Amino acid sequence: MEKQVLHIDCPDEKGLVYRITEVLYRHGLNIVSNQEFVDTTTDHFVMRTAFEGEETPNGVLEDLRTSLPNEADIRHAEIGDRSIVIMATKEPHCLGDLLLRYSNGEIPADVQAVISNHDNLRSLSEAFDVPFHAISHEKIDRKTHEAKVEEVLEQYQPDYIVLAKYMRIFSSDFVDRYKDKIINIHHSFLPAFIGANPYQQAFERGVKIIGATAHFVTDDLDEGPIIAQDVMPVNHSYTAEEMASAGRDVEKTVLAKAVKLLLEERIFIHNGRTIVFE
Amino acid sequence: MEKQVLHIDCPDEKGLVYRITEVLYRHGLNIVSNQEFVDTTTDHFVMRTAFEGEETPNGVLEDLRTSLPNEADIRHAEIGDRSIVIMATKEPHCLGDLLLRYSNGEIPADVQAVISNHDNLRSLSEAFDVPFHAISHEKIDRKTHEAKVEEVLEQYQPDYIVLAKYMRIFSSDFVDRYKDKIINIHHSFLPAFIGANPYQQAFERGVKIIGATAHFVTDDLDEGPIIAQDVMPVNHSYTAEEMASAGRDVEKTVLAKAVKLLLEERIFIHNGRTIVFE
Amino acid sequence: MEKQVLHIDCPDEKGLVYRITEVLYRHGLNIVSNQEFVDTTTDHFVMRTAFEGEETPNGVLEDLRTSLPNEADIRHAEIGDRSIVIMATKEPHCLGDLLLRYSNGEIPADVQAVISNHDNLRSLSEAFDVPFHAISHEKIDRKTHEAKVEEVLEQYQPDYIVLAKYMRIFSSDFVDRYKDKIINIHHSFLPAFIGANPYQQAFERGVKIIGATAHFVTDDLDEGPIIAQDVMPVNHSYTAEEMASAGRDVEKTVLAKAVKLLLEERIFIHNGRTIVFE
Amino acid sequence: MEKQVLHIDCPDEKGLVYRITEVLYRHGLNIVSNQEFVDTTTDHFVMRTAFEGEETPNGVLEDLRTSLPNEADIRHAEIGDRSIVIMATKEPHCLGDLLLRYSNGEIPADVQAVISNHDNLRSLSEAFDVPFHAISHEKIDRKTHEAKVEEVLEQYQPDYIVLAKYMRIFSSDFVDRYKDKIINIHHSFLPAFIGANPYQQAFERGVKIIGATAHFVTDDLDEGPIIAQDVMPVNHSYTAEEMASAGRDVEKTVLAKAVKLLLEERIFIHNGRTIVFE
Repeated sequence: MEKQVLHIDCPDEKGLVYRITEVLYRHGLNIVSNQEFVDTTTDHFVMRTAFEGEETPNGVLEDLRTSLPNEADIRHAEIGDRSIVIMATKEPHCLGDLLLRYSNGEIPADVQAVISNHDNLRSLSEAFDVPFHAISHEKIDRKTHEAKVEEVLEQYQPDYIVLAKYMRIFSSDFVDRYKDKIINIHHSFLPAFIGANPYQQAFERGVKIIGATAHFVTDDLDEGPIIAQDVMPVNHSYTAEEMASAGRDVEKTVLAKAVKLLLEERIFIHNGRTIVFE
Repeated sequence: MEKQVLHIDCPDEKGLVYRITEVLYRHGLNIVSNQEFVDTTTDHFVMRTAFEGEETPNGVLEDLRTSLPNEADIRHAEIGDRSIVIMATKEPHCLGDLLLRYSNGEIPADVQAVISNHDNLRSLSEAFDVPFHAISHEKIDRKTHEAKVEEVLEQYQPDYIVLAKYMRIFSSDFVDRYKDKIINIHHSFLPAFIGANPYQQAFERGVKIIGATAHFVTDDLDEGPIIAQDVMPVNHSYTAEEMASAGRDVEKTVLAKAVKLLLEERIFIHNGRTIVFE
Repeated sequence: MEKQVLHIDCPDEKGLVYRITEVLYRHGLNIVSNQEFVDTTTDHFVMRTAFEGEETPNGVLEDLRTSLPNEADIRHAEIGDRSIVIMATKEPHCLGDLLLRYSNGEIPADVQAVISNHDNLRSLSEAFDVPFHAISHEKIDRKTHEAKVEEVLEQYQPDYIVLAKYMRIFSSDFVDRYKDKIINIHHSFLPAFIGANPYQQAFERGVKIIGATAHFVTDDLDEGPIIAQDVMPVNHSYTAEEMASAGRDVEKTVLAKAVKLLLEERIFIHNGRTIVFE
Repeated sequence: MEKQVLHIDCPDEKGLVYRITEVLYRHGLNIVSNQEFVDTTTDHFVMRTAFEGEETPNGVLEDLRTSLPNEADIRHAEIGDRSIVIMATKEPHCLGDLLLRYSNGEIPADVQAVISNHDNLRSLSEAFDVPFHAISHEKIDRKTHEAKVEEVLEQYQPDYIVLAKYMRIFSSDFVDRYKDKIINIHHSFLPAFIGANPYQQAFERGVKIIGATAHFVTDDLDEGPIIAQDVMPVNHSYTAEEMASAGRDVEKTVLAKAVKLLLEERIFIHNGRTIVFE
């Protein structure tokens, strides 16, 4: 697995790859993989570089900043060193799959805690030795509830928050505070069948495919930048509940994929879309 | 390939399969395959039975009518004996794929003609020895145009009409006249990205999957009963045009599948949904 | 979910469906779904019928035996009433996924126990309250080991045995004793890359697809009747270990599907192949 | 579409990307996309760089050769400027699909001619205005037949030869002469079901998936480096012929994909495997 990763994000201009790789070469770093993309509709450049070495030599980031345009956003991450908190409501399929993968060593992060607005997922979390926090939303307003959630998040300071079927909507304030740090899994297809009972809608419409979308959370409900999508075939013999069950299988697969991409720092967000370097 | 096929469609009640197979047995028919489905939300029964024999013995349909409830809709079809007219506008990918399959013996029907509102697909159709009719919609109103189309259709009397990227909308009158006989292929996902430039919308939204849906044509634009759907993965490096190109590949695959299902009489329509016996 | 299911398996002849449904009708049973298939290469008939009712009226099986050819094999199953024992070795991905589904109510059976030849999966099993039996194969011969396994199986009397990455080969005697009752999940494609280190072989060959096959266990190693197969795309950037990791994801999906088909009694075995009524 | 492309292939060492992009920057070239891969099992580096500009300035290749290790293999290609000859035997599905795509502008190459050892595909080729050469293999030995094929190939000097269901085996001499220039489509899975009647074998084995593999042609029959693979689900109700028909659909899709990758110069061959930059 790659360990040291650089994320560079800046307006496109000639020679960017040359200037970046020159700095890395000068510091004696061996590049393991390089991925770049130029969004030609906005003339924007993004690059993900993984290089060998236990740590990044001093001065690399500084030299990159000197060498690149002022607007450049340069980030460094150590893969395997990430941390997440998972939030869920009552459904165990996505949470359980993530915890299983975590216990199998397939999640390159520390799963610090599970937060839920109900208590029924406690035994599942604790079976995998992950601390569980039930923060009920009942009888309190959204602001108070979010404050309690934030209190727990403050305690862990996770790099990312993974919504594994967390069924409550965050306020703009909350979303802003964790900008580009919260990902969600959404049944069915975005932007189709928005609203209540999507599987009932899908059933009534007689769809032949059921899907799921993992996306970043923004103020636009279920409309943040898409990270991953997949589908599963269904047919007329599926009841609405069986479609939902098929949907749960896609959801857990797509969310697991998105979490992996996120924790390996393979995702850039630009102009409302993601660039995903698989 | 199956040849003699019965379609039975009626309110569910006990003993339907028994009564149907009793009639077939009494007439000495050998059933090759039987497929039934009960829509339990509406208590409705559909059954497709294929049996051996060059022709259906006299009296079978009559005896079935006697044996089954009055409301039963009983249809008989001879597979391989069907006929279609294909309608297209300017894009050759779906039409070409159907013509190729036709010439390879993979379409169990006579492709009687191609009708287009433009002339550019003439050489493609004629290369496969299929008569081509250009009926321009320019400078005439929709009613007049449809009358001209109907005139050609009358000449061929096709069992089905396949819209292979025909980009004009039919009037309610036209659709009514060919109820349950017209199928269409629609880019992207129904009901998502309805409107102009769906691939541009998909590109801007950064979707990771492109799809196509084949459906019956009803008055609700692009909302008729779904026959088949499929998808293809795309990513950030696809331009809107490349997404459209990927989309064309899915479109042709899905339409070909729907045409095959249609001509093998594997589709029932009930309550706005299809039952497809694959 | 369907509850009462009949499996009928016999040489094909005219009127079988009629005779079967006549008996059911006579006993006042309401058929929920019927699926039949005739293997025309061997003139063999199989049928799966699900009907409503908490229990099967007395005499139905007897009357079917009277009505059908002597060679007919007629079985009755109550879905939801099944029981399984899972066997595994050291890898947790398939076992964990099955246990999760079991705890979510998605496995229509009682998971009675987990048997392993190692001890490391004990905490996973016990986290889901499933008894765990470690039966080491070390320092004893295969016959003795199998006798110990059988002793535990005798105690549970499961309907089926699911090998969820159980890495030991059974003797012919063992396989015979549980004929058509053991299913297995196999990496990669059958019959491709048989032998040691299949993912290393797949990597060296530069395959672009990784698959898994669920099958019944017979004397022919990894060659029993296939139940389900699926694949996942891979590419040049995958190491052998990453291919194996992708493979694990397919394995768990395919095994879960096969287990569901098995427990819903949707599988027939005839002439070395399966007929799967999905 | 990209136009100017560089392929660089050499033993890995520090600073390769830096040295390459330095040369391009010095010559004022704007990189559109860069893709690199290091095969860490052999310490080998490959890079594909697409840059803007109608032509490559003089001296770029020379400067790259100076800047890079002696062993480096540096190739330049102009996309859209490629040419191919298609070879087929009797089956029209792959050839027809390629010709349709060619006529739709979806093949970035000049399809110069079709060569077959039979005459039945003549009208299909000529319908798309592509010259057709029937070179019968009957009553002559392989050497003589290949000499005749080479004579026609010499006349066209294609960049690549696409075997679209060409059912004859080439001699080592022929393969050597067109090393890394011939691609083939193979039914079923490599290396599974090698031998005669693969679909019959697949049918008898009761497979649930049918696949196709596009690969470079080497001396090892059907064992050259894999370019692309895909599958299609099948089930017990498919006859061997229906499996073959499903297989034809996968074959044409996979071959079309491989041809596009080839003509856009997205494929490297190293150590018997391909690196495909999609």
